Amino acid sequence: MPEPTKAKIGVLGASGYTGAELVRLLLRHAGVEIALLTADRRAGQEMREVFPQFAPFGLPKLRSIEGLDWARAQVDLVFCALPHGTTQQVIRDLLAKAPAVKVVDLSADFRLADIAAYARWYGHAHQASELQREAVYGLVEVYRERIKAARLVANPGCYTTCAQLALIPLLKAKAIDPEAIVIDAKSGTTGAGRAAKEEQLFAEVSEGIHAYGVGHHRHMAELDQEFSLAAGREVVASFTPHLVPMSRGILSTIYVRAHAGGGAEDLHAILSKCYANEPFVHVLPPGIMPQTRHVRGSNMTFIGVAKDRVAGHAIIGAALDNLVKGASGQAVQNMNLMLGFPEAMGLEQVALFP
Amino acid sequence: MPEPTKAKIGVLGASGYTGAELVRLLLRHAGVEIALLTADRRAGQEMREVFPQFAPFGLPKLRSIEGLDWARAQVDLVFCALPHGTTQQVIRDLLAKAPAVKVVDLSADFRLADIAAYARWYGHAHQASELQREAVYGLVEVYRERIKAARLVANPGCYTTCAQLALIPLLKAKAIDPEAIVIDAKSGTTGAGRAAKEEQLFAEVSEGIHAYGVGHHRHMAELDQEFSLAAGREVVASFTPHLVPMSRGILSTIYVRAHAGGGAEDLHAILSKCYANEPFVHVLPPGIMPQTRHVRGSNMTFIGVAKDRVAGHAIIGAALDNLVKGASGQAVQNMNLMLGFPEAMGLEQVALFP
Amino acid sequence: MPEPTKAKIGVLGASGYTGAELVRLLLRHAGVEIALLTADRRAGQEMREVFPQFAPFGLPKLRSIEGLDWARAQVDLVFCALPHGTTQQVIRDLLAKAPAVKVVDLSADFRLADIAAYARWYGHAHQASELQREAVYGLVEVYRERIKAARLVANPGCYTTCAQLALIPLLKAKAIDPEAIVIDAKSGTTGAGRAAKEEQLFAEVSEGIHAYGVGHHRHMAELDQEFSLAAGREVVASFTPHLVPMSRGILSTIYVRAHAGGGAEDLHAILSKCYANEPFVHVLPPGIMPQTRHVRGSNMTFIGVAKDRVAGHAIIGAALDNLVKGASGQAVQNMNLMLGFPEAMGLEQVALFP
Amino acid sequence: MPEPTKAKIGVLGASGYTGAELVRLLLRHAGVEIALLTADRRAGQEMREVFPQFAPFGLPKLRSIEGLDWARAQVDLVFCALPHGTTQQVIRDLLAKAPAVKVVDLSADFRLADIAAYARWYGHAHQASELQREAVYGLVEVYRERIKAARLVANPGCYTTCAQLALIPLLKAKAIDPEAIVIDAKSGTTGAGRAAKEEQLFAEVSEGIHAYGVGHHRHMAELDQEFSLAAGREVVASFTPHLVPMSRGILSTIYVRAHAGGGAEDLHAILSKCYANEPFVHVLPPGIMPQTRHVRGSNMTFIGVAKDRVAGHAIIGAALDNLVKGASGQAVQNMNLMLGFPEAMGLEQVALFP
Repeated sequence: MPEPTKAKIGVLGASGYTGAELVRLLLRHAGVEIALLTADRRAGQEMREVFPQFAPFGLPKLRSIEGLDWARAQVDLVFCALPHGTTQQVIRDLLAKAPAVKVVDLSADFRLADIAAYARWYGHAHQASELQREAVYGLVEVYRERIKAARLVANPGCYTTCAQLALIPLLKAKAIDPEAIVIDAKSGTTGAGRAAKEEQLFAEVSEGIHAYGVGHHRHMAELDQEFSLAAGREVVASFTPHLVPMSRGILSTIYVRAHAGGGAEDLHAILSKCYANEPFVHVLPPGIMPQTRHVRGSNMTFIGVAKDRVAGHAIIGAALDNLVKGASGQAVQNMNLMLGFPEAMGLEQVALFP
Repeated sequence: MPEPTKAKIGVLGASGYTGAELVRLLLRHAGVEIALLTADRRAGQEMREVFPQFAPFGLPKLRSIEGLDWARAQVDLVFCALPHGTTQQVIRDLLAKAPAVKVVDLSADFRLADIAAYARWYGHAHQASELQREAVYGLVEVYRERIKAARLVANPGCYTTCAQLALIPLLKAKAIDPEAIVIDAKSGTTGAGRAAKEEQLFAEVSEGIHAYGVGHHRHMAELDQEFSLAAGREVVASFTPHLVPMSRGILSTIYVRAHAGGGAEDLHAILSKCYANEPFVHVLPPGIMPQTRHVRGSNMTFIGVAKDRVAGHAIIGAALDNLVKGASGQAVQNMNLMLGFPEAMGLEQVALFP
Repeated sequence: MPEPTKAKIGVLGASGYTGAELVRLLLRHAGVEIALLTADRRAGQEMREVFPQFAPFGLPKLRSIEGLDWARAQVDLVFCALPHGTTQQVIRDLLAKAPAVKVVDLSADFRLADIAAYARWYGHAHQASELQREAVYGLVEVYRERIKAARLVANPGCYTTCAQLALIPLLKAKAIDPEAIVIDAKSGTTGAGRAAKEEQLFAEVSEGIHAYGVGHHRHMAELDQEFSLAAGREVVASFTPHLVPMSRGILSTIYVRAHAGGGAEDLHAILSKCYANEPFVHVLPPGIMPQTRHVRGSNMTFIGVAKDRVAGHAIIGAALDNLVKGASGQAVQNMNLMLGFPEAMGLEQVALFP
Repeated sequence: MPEPTKAKIGVLGASGYTGAELVRLLLRHAGVEIALLTADRRAGQEMREVFPQFAPFGLPKLRSIEGLDWARAQVDLVFCALPHGTTQQVIRDLLAKAPAVKVVDLSADFRLADIAAYARWYGHAHQASELQREAVYGLVEVYRERIKAARLVANPGCYTTCAQLALIPLLKAKAIDPEAIVIDAKSGTTGAGRAAKEEQLFAEVSEGIHAYGVGHHRHMAELDQEFSLAAGREVVASFTPHLVPMSRGILSTIYVRAHAGGGAEDLHAILSKCYANEPFVHVLPPGIMPQTRHVRGSNMTFIGVAKDRVAGHAIIGAALDNLVKGASGQAVQNMNLMLGFPEAMGLEQVALFP
């Protein structure tokens, strides 16, 4: 019996951390074959020169995007792990020449439905506004059905996935005051990518913690969009990211006020019910808070709810691996839906702890 | 010309982290001499066996407290770096036998003025309630004058010093809403001391972050006491501590709402004015947030204030080294006041970064 | 069509790091079912209370070994991840009552074929000397055929696996001077297990490195045994382990002298040929040295060979994950051989980097 | 009584790690005043923008070297913390225009007495060969008297200081075989400086260890020079550096063979006697090995000697802080000698542990 044909997958931007993480996951996905890897600055090199952990595996040589002929590339789906801003042109070109290819974009380029909001947050007009209208926001637990039919999926950001999974069910249920949401988020360093920057050097990150982007982090636009949709009214949450001396992981500690008469127990009940059958969101018992290390390397999100000592207030913790459920894992989850694979295929890894 | 007589200092609990930090600082304090070191489980050993960094220095051998004759100990001041709960009896005995000795206690035993609050938070009646009435809360920037005259000073906790330095001036000035304070605190591991516990092992702490003690951390009692005194009314702030993979440092990210018409600029102005002449509190320019690594090893506290994008809300960051300004450094600062030394003596070290 | 019967597996000592790692791997092994988990101090608890990363998975409750009736336990194979010294009695009892059960022992108890050497290194007589004679040393790449037929396999130590994979082929080929071998080994902290010890606290391990067990580390006995067997003469290598601030990984930097006329190229050729078809040993191109992070979480060993500038000398680097190829991964590899599964089954995970 | 005039000090390259470390030390040195700071890429900025830990201190604004008029700069001594290769021209210009200025150069430019060796290791002819002849190698414990009279001191490298302090006394005493020296060195990341490089990013360095520069690290030239001088014959030691996930610290584990009849005890005795009165080298008791964390932030070097189990062989461990005794601390020690200050002035800080 012949092996069933595998879907052919391309990864644009394979020399970055989300690119490598896609390769890690796809190498162990039984339904796909890695057919194309690009990395402009490393074009011509082998993947093992860029990421030695892949030395034992056969992989296509890295190419530059410029040299590609999309009409002949023969890929079924492309993951786009390129920097924000440059992505929209690449995808516009790709889909112009190969309109049947499906695309999961890991950049922020197609996440904001409102072109004006995009221009405001990113400082320039969107270069592919028609595709923006077509794009589906790839938060699987919320938009699963739309994703199945999508050609272009905008994979959510890491901070936003974490906060949205914790808050959207509560906002939809009108269980919390949308005017009193404080999200204190903590991230590992890979969220900033692999670009060589002084502030990401080991000696600048280790043995310390600090907030950054206070009051103006771009992920806020995504939060606003989805929280407002969920609440049916404008929601502007307070959001402050911090850099933690760890490679992977996001923890969101979220301070909320339950609506009159409600409390932490109600919020826990809503989240537990909402995620009871989700393969990648696990609600911990009441009062137990999540640790990022317990989801490291896995596609899992852990959510905990605890009473605050201020009456009617609750503290919600949500933890995920920013490179997996916060990026490449969710991207594969989206791919599975788009290509008709079982949703959890290739994403079964148990977290690596310690 | 004979050298002026140095004050003779004892450190009870010298085998723990705050004990070692006291020794580090006192070794370089020109006005004192380390005359006594105790460590019950390590009695009879040399300090260099417990903390090899002291190998090049001559120090008294470690003794057990039990074997001490306080009437003859000939110490001028004792730092008590013993576990919470056991400290009160030790100090009661010490002051009964040697009433002229001055004491800086680094435990929580004498921090709560209200004996009933103590019993409620710690689960047992206080064993030295008269001394509790005598004790002065050792937050230098607030109680400087009372500390100068004190015999027994209760050195504040690390989390509380950090949050109090940021908030007390604002509460005193009635500049913020005392009912909407959220303190998201992040600490290095030495805050938990040197006791061997599974959850403090390297592999349990590295590469991850989590909240703990959610809703019921004992430092809340100290916060309530001092915030309420500052505000002139009861204040119950939300406070959530997190464990960060770093040895030293506390960062408090504090979410506040300015009173009608006010904003981040006003809060910044109040803090800047309040701390303009303080040697160990430095207010950063508006919008600049502190990093714990920039105060590591020093007695400095850095405070930053930024606008939140929610109108009228502000985000305050405060960073200190939990073993220095959060414990042993502030203890030496208290000692300097109690013994008549210049307040900054022996505390001049510049932060160690990187 | 009914699912084929899965082998029933027990893990003794599931609350330690190697126990958890076995569970991580076995949960994703298609041929087995976790039927029994023990942890004496945590008996009665759920695995998720001890290792929260397993919260999403159904697992048997933890039991104590004492309460087990081996005759009725209905397990096909048991992994024994108990402390050195206590293991031999447990396995003696187990095999007395259930002689058909197969055992992979991760402790050092059955690694030394010479009972006298055991007594010398461990300070007490062996309690199961007959089983010691039966036990097969589980270094798969060397003893594959014997392992397939074994009932009791002594899984090698982490340091020893790393050094042996690098050196045994060279000693067998008589390519290096057996009297001039220096092994400078560096390990992450999980090699010391999960027991709460002061010297393993985060603040004692982070931001520093040191040698330990200099001149008398017990792993030397295993090295001596296998090196001498390979060389056909007594070999006593110099071996110094170091503790590195990382959770996982062993790097052995090995200094050797090639036999007259030989050099690094010859050693590289021997190793390349020897491991050409091995799934879990990968020899890097000449001059490229391995990094532990590139094998983290995987069962892979990376080996590199470089010329030293001293003529005829070479430097060999070998890297593995001490909890996978250095312990639980190799144990599963042994299990696969013993139960007739494909050798790499359940061990396909790609390394987690970054 | 007027304050005695302080020496005016310049730091060229103040935006790097060794520059910042010089500032940290000089700020607390009673005999000097920081009069000039340069940093070409950051010229015009305040030091606190580049290193926020200096925010509480008044410091000169950063300038570019190009704009300086050395004839009028009025500095007594300049520390040169510039990259290798560019330094020699800068110092040649400086001394041409201001010949009375003293210079401590922290680069490698003036360390090799042999101009031909310099050209061989660095790939280009030396640009200031006359100054090279004048320069004194600044390993204080060996060249103290010559340094006192020097105008230009070449501050030794971090790896070399560490290995030389351990081995020079043994080579001078002819106590070890100069043909069988293996130096396995481990360094924190600040040894590579503050330049933004991919391989120094937090996520590339944390949770792993690897060797680099195997067989061809430039510090070998310095080792060869000083070892050969000490032994009175050519010495070519094996030297392999490793990168450890820590910011500061170098540990050298050195494998040696004692000359006929000798052993570890003899080596320990030689080192103990040699360093008995040195303020910054401390020999630990026999068998005790050093840890880098116990010298962090201090100018101390700890040395330990242990027996190897191979007869006549010994293992020597040496630990120092690469930014202090391995760079800026030793530079200040050199300055103290050159300007007539007490040698330990400004270097009294006790190590920061934990």
